[in-house]
Amino acid sequence: MPIYECLTVSGTLSQDVRDRLARIITDVHAEETNAPADLIHVVFPELPRGHAYTAGSSSAPILIRGQVRAGRAPEVRNAILRRINDACRELLPEIHPMRILIAVIDVPAKWAMEAGRILPEPVESEEKEWFEDLNRRMAPIAQA
Amino acid sequence: MPIYECLTVSGTLSQDVRDRLARIITDVHAEETNAPADLIHVVFPELPRGHAYTAGSSSAPILIRGQVRAGRAPEVRNAILRRINDACRELLPEIHPMRILIAVIDVPAKWAMEAGRILPEPVESEEKEWFEDLNRRMAPIAQA
Amino acid sequence: MPIYECLTVSGTLSQDVRDRLARIITDVHAEETNAPADLIHVVFPELPRGHAYTAGSSSAPILIRGQVRAGRAPEVRNAILRRINDACRELLPEIHPMRILIAVIDVPAKWAMEAGRILPEPVESEEKEWFEDLNRRMAPIAQA
Repeated sequence: MPIYECLTVSGTLSQDVRDRLARIITDVHAEETNAPADLIHVVFPELPRGHAYTAGSSSAPILIRGQVRAGRAPEVRNAILRRINDACRELLPEIHPMRILIAVIDVPAKWAMEAGRILPEPVESEEKEWFEDLNRRMAPIAQA
Repeated sequence: MPIYECLTVSGTLSQDVRDRLARIITDVHAEETNAPADLIHVVFPELPRGHAYTAGSSSAPILIRGQVRAGRAPEVRNAILRRINDACRELLPEIHPMRILIAVIDVPAKWAMEAGRILPEPVESEEKEWFEDLNRRMAPIAQA
Repeated sequence: MPIYECLTVSGTLSQDVRDRLARIITDVHAEETNAPADLIHVVFPELPRGHAYTAGSSSAPILIRGQVRAGRAPEVRNAILRRINDACRELLPEIHPMRILIAVIDVPAKWAMEAGRILPEPVESEEKEWFEDLNRRMAPIAQA
């Protein structure tokens, strides 16, 4: 965690825009929460053309849903929402602002497991030991 | 918000059924909650054939998940669930009723941003100003 | 319910691995919660190649998200997380353990409808009547 899912209709985002949006979302989340970038996933599922509707008619919205550990301050979430929205506006000026919906949804840390461990609460005391343990046990991961 | 995701195995829903289901879900949500239709998204992600299992065997269920602002009365959710279920039964009589699963999941309004604004709570006092502001700022959106 | 979504980049899982993982997740959930297998859905949505990023770079993680009725003991969730993680490690030894993220997310029973009925709380008193009713009303379902 976190996972950010950016759902669009096929053809809405170019490879370059995906690359840049993934980088921006990763940086925003890492900067606002101090999470290690190596735990931040951004994925781009695609809907077949014609499989999205708004107001009952065919549409092509940008629907971004993050799932993050619960327990952050509201200001952290607001900053993440604001900065991702700004990035979408800049990268995708042709998309109407009302077609950009972003949600950052809390998931209790205890509900998730990564690298075979239940996640720590997002407080320094729990994270410190967890990250140290990860570093001890994990070899560097080749990107693939 | 809301977003309704209707997940099926590719080939389960025809274009006509998607069109009709999108329209029905939009109308049901708008009627039961008084939300403006223009904020209601319905999407139809598809699983490749053979990528869904029930009881460990290949299956073709209808899995509908709505994410809506938290704070509605239970009767509102029940009516939405009931009416979407009834629509699926009517549009898809060949699907066994036990293969139709619908969930309407609360998301706190403050966790989401649309059109660059944090969503209002689903109460008239907050929504009135928000909708007026949207109307002021937004030009009509061409469906695309 | 439950639904387990196993999200990967296309090409990560073979048909055989999907078959086995679906069976294992179904067995684990049924054994740990006493839910009837016939209500357990496991689905494998796929991302196009190049549509997943970790730390801002292209990656191929295993992202598993279960949605289950709220109200289980923490030990039940922990056992589910542990056993699914172990299965992924065994079936997919080439995936780095830090690229396996599993979350089991609570959904209040009252938020969902299956077979046309609001789900019962996960306690015997409510489930008994519900399952008996299902058995009365439902003909056996041919897997399809």
